[in-house]
Amino acid sequence: MDNNQILELDKSKTLRPTVEALEEILYKPINVLDHGFIRVIDYMGDDSAIVQAARVSYGKGTKKMSQDKGLINYLMKHAHTTPFEMCEIKLHVKLPIFVARQWVRHRTANINEYSARYSILDKEFYIPSADQISYQSISNKQGRGEVLDHEDSQKILDMLRQDAERCYENYAYMLNIDEETGEVLDESRNGVARELARMNLTLNYYTQWYWKIDLHNLMHFLKLRSHHHAQYEIRVYAEKMLEILKRWVPCVYDAFINYSSGSFNLSKTAIKVIHDRLSGVHISKENSGLSAREWDELKGIFPNL
Amino acid sequence: MDNNQILELDKSKTLRPTVEALEEILYKPINVLDHGFIRVIDYMGDDSAIVQAARVSYGKGTKKMSQDKGLINYLMKHAHTTPFEMCEIKLHVKLPIFVARQWVRHRTANINEYSARYSILDKEFYIPSADQISYQSISNKQGRGEVLDHEDSQKILDMLRQDAERCYENYAYMLNIDEETGEVLDESRNGVARELARMNLTLNYYTQWYWKIDLHNLMHFLKLRSHHHAQYEIRVYAEKMLEILKRWVPCVYDAFINYSSGSFNLSKTAIKVIHDRLSGVHISKENSGLSAREWDELKGIFPNL
Amino acid sequence: MDNNQILELDKSKTLRPTVEALEEILYKPINVLDHGFIRVIDYMGDDSAIVQAARVSYGKGTKKMSQDKGLINYLMKHAHTTPFEMCEIKLHVKLPIFVARQWVRHRTANINEYSARYSILDKEFYIPSADQISYQSISNKQGRGEVLDHEDSQKILDMLRQDAERCYENYAYMLNIDEETGEVLDESRNGVARELARMNLTLNYYTQWYWKIDLHNLMHFLKLRSHHHAQYEIRVYAEKMLEILKRWVPCVYDAFINYSSGSFNLSKTAIKVIHDRLSGVHISKENSGLSAREWDELKGIFPNL
Amino acid sequence: MDNNQILELDKSKTLRPTVEALEEILYKPINVLDHGFIRVIDYMGDDSAIVQAARVSYGKGTKKMSQDKGLINYLMKHAHTTPFEMCEIKLHVKLPIFVARQWVRHRTANINEYSARYSILDKEFYIPSADQISYQSISNKQGRGEVLDHEDSQKILDMLRQDAERCYENYAYMLNIDEETGEVLDESRNGVARELARMNLTLNYYTQWYWKIDLHNLMHFLKLRSHHHAQYEIRVYAEKMLEILKRWVPCVYDAFINYSSGSFNLSKTAIKVIHDRLSGVHISKENSGLSAREWDELKGIFPNL
Repeated sequence: MDNNQILELDKSKTLRPTVEALEEILYKPINVLDHGFIRVIDYMGDDSAIVQAARVSYGKGTKKMSQDKGLINYLMKHAHTTPFEMCEIKLHVKLPIFVARQWVRHRTANINEYSARYSILDKEFYIPSADQISYQSISNKQGRGEVLDHEDSQKILDMLRQDAERCYENYAYMLNIDEETGEVLDESRNGVARELARMNLTLNYYTQWYWKIDLHNLMHFLKLRSHHHAQYEIRVYAEKMLEILKRWVPCVYDAFINYSSGSFNLSKTAIKVIHDRLSGVHISKENSGLSAREWDELKGIFPNL
Repeated sequence: MDNNQILELDKSKTLRPTVEALEEILYKPINVLDHGFIRVIDYMGDDSAIVQAARVSYGKGTKKMSQDKGLINYLMKHAHTTPFEMCEIKLHVKLPIFVARQWVRHRTANINEYSARYSILDKEFYIPSADQISYQSISNKQGRGEVLDHEDSQKILDMLRQDAERCYENYAYMLNIDEETGEVLDESRNGVARELARMNLTLNYYTQWYWKIDLHNLMHFLKLRSHHHAQYEIRVYAEKMLEILKRWVPCVYDAFINYSSGSFNLSKTAIKVIHDRLSGVHISKENSGLSAREWDELKGIFPNL
Repeated sequence: MDNNQILELDKSKTLRPTVEALEEILYKPINVLDHGFIRVIDYMGDDSAIVQAARVSYGKGTKKMSQDKGLINYLMKHAHTTPFEMCEIKLHVKLPIFVARQWVRHRTANINEYSARYSILDKEFYIPSADQISYQSISNKQGRGEVLDHEDSQKILDMLRQDAERCYENYAYMLNIDEETGEVLDESRNGVARELARMNLTLNYYTQWYWKIDLHNLMHFLKLRSHHHAQYEIRVYAEKMLEILKRWVPCVYDAFINYSSGSFNLSKTAIKVIHDRLSGVHISKENSGLSAREWDELKGIFPNL
Repeated sequence: MDNNQILELDKSKTLRPTVEALEEILYKPINVLDHGFIRVIDYMGDDSAIVQAARVSYGKGTKKMSQDKGLINYLMKHAHTTPFEMCEIKLHVKLPIFVARQWVRHRTANINEYSARYSILDKEFYIPSADQISYQSISNKQGRGEVLDHEDSQKILDMLRQDAERCYENYAYMLNIDEETGEVLDESRNGVARELARMNLTLNYYTQWYWKIDLHNLMHFLKLRSHHHAQYEIRVYAEKMLEILKRWVPCVYDAFINYSSGSFNLSKTAIKVIHDRLSGVHISKENSGLSAREWDELKGIFPNL
């Protein structure tokens, strides 16, 4: 009996909305970075649950909007967010602490994190691949520029690895455990309190948590964190979650790409620039009323401006 | 083929945690008040999902706490609330507007309400049963005292009914619909905007919504709204939800009754009063340090104080 | 000694950021609708508090962005919302209950509402002005169309007034008070519980609350509620609050108008339409890939499309 | 002209409620741990603002409750939390990253954190004092037991210091800066992206943020984090904040100590135990219905049980 047959036996019957494409990957870790993963643990609702909730709101008013997909597009375009809050997903995520620190800034979610006060962290830390070791960007104060050449990047990787290892060695010493096996080292003494020892670990150590969020807030997270300005190490998590989103709620996914993550917000001044240009008025960077940065950004999207 | 057989066919297979006792009542309206109801629409998680989330947090630290029920009690007692946030429930509720106004003060929930800007409200309003028509309480500024005698209460009920009916009559006139059938009355004219006409309805008209909340916040709601100080008309909803809670997460339900809704918070001064009394010191209302109200409340719980 | 001199004496000295233009209107009711008002009760922070908070985040990284206004524009444009959460405002608002029901859907705010369980509501209800009595819009399911002619609107206004008055008459009877003076009517009997009697009032009765919100969430509220799709009766509150915003944080106000309330979000498909059009490609409604509604909306902004 | 005179000149006049005891310490850092601090940056409201908000809710119903302190006690005892949400405080806090990770789990607050993607962290890390280096508690899975003897604790402190220093040395190398002066080291090369280099720092490095929270949520934070089960390194921050609370809202502070932080929640079972004991019934650990842990805890509070 293979693995899939066993899973089949574990299934229960339910009257709740069920999404086959998501059931296929339920509980299965999707690898991210060198030791991280995302696992879907549970979900509530599907595309039709959003339509159902919207129809409670609009009652007979939505009768004519016969197609669900059209209604979902309408809701997304007009930022009618409450129906999207009617779906919920729960993920198990393993991620480096410096990524967790960004992630947790999204407050409208539920989190159960592994506690290093109670338990001992494993010897697992993130080391970037060589092609991710980049210079500080000159133009973007928070971004990466060119990749280092091989020799230089190896030196950086060695530093990261050696420091993480030495810190763990001392962490294990403090806890009085063998750093490989986790066994007690010296039976004659106790370990230092775990809540103290943990401060010796570097920010690339992995932590893990259960993370539960509604669909509206998930999309807000994904819009920000799949953006090319987001740090690579959180963006790769967002990208895997986009694939999960597509499996879970395919109509919402399409609407999200068109109206949210792939959209562009024109400022009042930029509206005027395009309006004038379409009316045949010549607009230059100087007389556009836009800042240099805004002009360049608009030009990036509309090169024939 | 009877109804239950049909439902059986509608079931899907899922790997998600499934609660049979809750599946039994899924989608079925539970009546509340004269026209209201609660229906469970969806749920995520069960008792074991809480244990599972807690074990992510405490890791190896919970190994010894072998019994799930013990762990749930421990979490509830010590207000370790995050594992309870890992379960979620979605209800469809029909309720009078004045009840909805109290309900919505619980902000940590998702709501999709029927919109009377888009759609027309049905002619359904709440009329209390005669035994609920009470005088203003003298002692409790926000409560009810004695029940009115039959003749007086009938007069009140007639007023409520007549005013609600007359208001709907004019609401329907404004909308240009027949108040019984909802058909257009006069084809030669339009109705007044629904968003305007609705203001003529009284606060006992029924509205409805989808309401989604996590288990931790649900229990907070239930603690406040099943309390005997809560208004009767919201308390009856809370009581039905307690029954739902018991079906859904029986271990959590027991812990909730013991450590939360059935518990009593002793102030620092009250701790000293009981401490002294157990040490054989005589404590009187006057020298207790408690306000008269606090003393009476404590005496209500411990008559032999 | 005039009123302004008295107020001057009431002033305290503080090291906190203080905004003179807002102090001028502090505590003074700004009238809205027929009996409503908004009063600023307290505030925390000003334009410079946002800059200060942003500089904590970006540290030396913001050194070059020497102008505060530029930084505020940058934060607004890129939806870096956390610095805007560092300002807070507290308002006292009197508003019809049906408006309050929309308002309270904004959950990220603190509210203390007048309780009709504890206290008696005054005889104050909202009656629209005649030029606000409109037919249901044909095109917009939730909006207003043409204004009724004089005779028809008077009939509606009479209905609203008479129903509100009769409901209050019975409310007062139930409470055993004189509806004009609020004095006890009949000393020989008690009133019905206030929590019951209130259900007989119509949704245009006024309630009031203290409402406290941070600047980021205030702007979200204002964007939605000052929009021309918002119901007139809440929009007039939003418009008064925009004036308050302008007094309080003038740089933020300008950025809000340009990048948020006056902006337009182009979907991915709409970006392509404009891109092609600027490249000289002819785009028609049919081959645009936009829905009819979206095409018309885009055409409304860019008539020369 | 001394410092206080200068500050006096900086003061503005305001009609807002002002708290002199808090103005005295405004902007002044209160030291915590070896390099941390708390500074009050701004505040909104005082004791009377809570009373004022409560009186909006209860209207004439609170007329008789003539004393503000009595009303505040009443609100605190009965968990009427909304009036406490009407006050707000903003703090500037410098704290070790592992403390920040606990702190941020309180989601109902606004945060602007120093960004190590934009800017370079200073060489400042937390080293406990020797009397804080304790063994893992045997009884409490998340706590500290006995303090290590001098020689052993020195060894731990050396490890912590050496690892933090070496990690910073490599952090500075990656960034191409001098670790003491922050000057560029080698003009011929760029530094590695700051968002990458930061992962090499240990969790005891200091970060800082602006943190804004309402009074209700602040007290919830303080109740949990000033508890003796909280980790020492966050508890010392909570203790300083309790002093700030006392200056800011002295009546609320007293009520908080009596009804919240100093209170004890009796479970339903524990109520019965005390009830029986006061009625003269002998109760033993075995027949109490309490778990061993609960019995011991109750016995800790009432030794004569």
